[in-house]
Amino acid sequence: MHKLVLIRHGQSQWNLDNRFSGWADVDLTAQGIAEAQEAGRLLQEAGYSFDVAHTSLLKRAVRTLWHVQDTMDLMWIPVLTDWRLNERHYGALTGLNKAETAAKYGDDQVKVWRRSYDIPPPPLDRATNESVHDPRYATLDPKDIPDTECLKDTVARVMTYWHELLAPAIRTGQRVVVAAHGNSLRALVKYLDGISDDDIVELNIPNGVPLVYEFDAELKPLRRYYLGDAAAIEAKMAAVANQGKAK
Amino acid sequence: MHKLVLIRHGQSQWNLDNRFSGWADVDLTAQGIAEAQEAGRLLQEAGYSFDVAHTSLLKRAVRTLWHVQDTMDLMWIPVLTDWRLNERHYGALTGLNKAETAAKYGDDQVKVWRRSYDIPPPPLDRATNESVHDPRYATLDPKDIPDTECLKDTVARVMTYWHELLAPAIRTGQRVVVAAHGNSLRALVKYLDGISDDDIVELNIPNGVPLVYEFDAELKPLRRYYLGDAAAIEAKMAAVANQGKAK
Repeated sequence: MHKLVLIRHGQSQWNLDNRFSGWADVDLTAQGIAEAQEAGRLLQEAGYSFDVAHTSLLKRAVRTLWHVQDTMDLMWIPVLTDWRLNERHYGALTGLNKAETAAKYGDDQVKVWRRSYDIPPPPLDRATNESVHDPRYATLDPKDIPDTECLKDTVARVMTYWHELLAPAIRTGQRVVVAAHGNSLRALVKYLDGISDDDIVELNIPNGVPLVYEFDAELKPLRRYYLGDAAAIEAKMAAVANQGKAK
Repeated sequence: MHKLVLIRHGQSQWNLDNRFSGWADVDLTAQGIAEAQEAGRLLQEAGYSFDVAHTSLLKRAVRTLWHVQDTMDLMWIPVLTDWRLNERHYGALTGLNKAETAAKYGDDQVKVWRRSYDIPPPPLDRATNESVHDPRYATLDPKDIPDTECLKDTVARVMTYWHELLAPAIRTGQRVVVAAHGNSLRALVKYLDGISDDDIVELNIPNGVPLVYEFDAELKPLRRYYLGDAAAIEAKMAAVANQGKAK
């Protein structure tokens, strides 16, 4: 049986501040680090190990992975980093406090921007889009660097990564862990579980909790489950769902 | 002009305890972490950046690299891990206190084992060699897993890594950093600087100090130099040289 483990990064400073992060390279909080270590501990305790890890180009995901590796004594495994696992790009909302944005535009508009499948937030001006000049994106075709993204855009790039790198590795029997972001993981879950465009926007993936998929030989999911305490995970999912609401 | 940066891991617990580490997976001390961060700071300050990093399968090298990456805001670069960058395997001396070994066998015998080019220490029994069952070496041909190594053996495996991965990357203009070990780096330095079998055993590479090579188009070294305070580096090199002497 094939397995895949997905981990959303631990709490970041902008999760705590309730700001839209997107491609801003925000670091983990102390709580986020503790969540990442706890994810590693849960995986270790349940007997997991990994042959390869994949993560984004953003430090909150990389650092989460590093703490998982450290806790599991797997610092030596190969790690692939790729922009296609980055968080959804939030365009002109990047850096804004979600509660303030909600107070200004209303909960409904914020939810449209955060959670509509195909309506992106207002774009950044290309001239002020820092990612265009960031060395980590220097090898990308400039047209692949977004000024904003709807979830549909994120799904499209994550799917190319799944088909090119993740699925082939899992098929050959590699034990794969992916440390990524709320929306890049939501993209994967949408595909794997065949969730509709409408329903996927309601799916909330908690920070720092291992999500395990078990597949048949054709990589159809047989089971999916989080590791850890069910009540604590429910509370975390509710917290994510409430992030976009005005305070 | 092509450049290459080599960094020996920061102080490990067994550097501090004066024990032969070899392939034992000993972690950094607090001082070792500070040395790694300082290496990153020196590189950052001098305007260095990297496109790719290479390290061993041992956590003291990986963690050194992670701290360098973190300090330089380069957590996103690709990292390749490979057993060929591991420390020299110290055979039956692994885990022994160097001062005690020197007191028992004499300074000269310890220096022979540590520093002879082609005389290995007594081998581990294959039946008790933990590396044979370590998942990190599971993909190796069992005959490539050493029971002991002389420096000549270490040079042989490091050279395959140089020719297969490091030299081609540097030739194509990639900015490469290698975080590794006293003897795997000594192997590289021997080759790059054309140092004799007799002289290389006297060369001491300090922990946690960036060593920069500048090359011409054929990868012949034009200059080599450490970054940082010269007096402090001299003191570190002397400390390494004295590690094998009885206390």
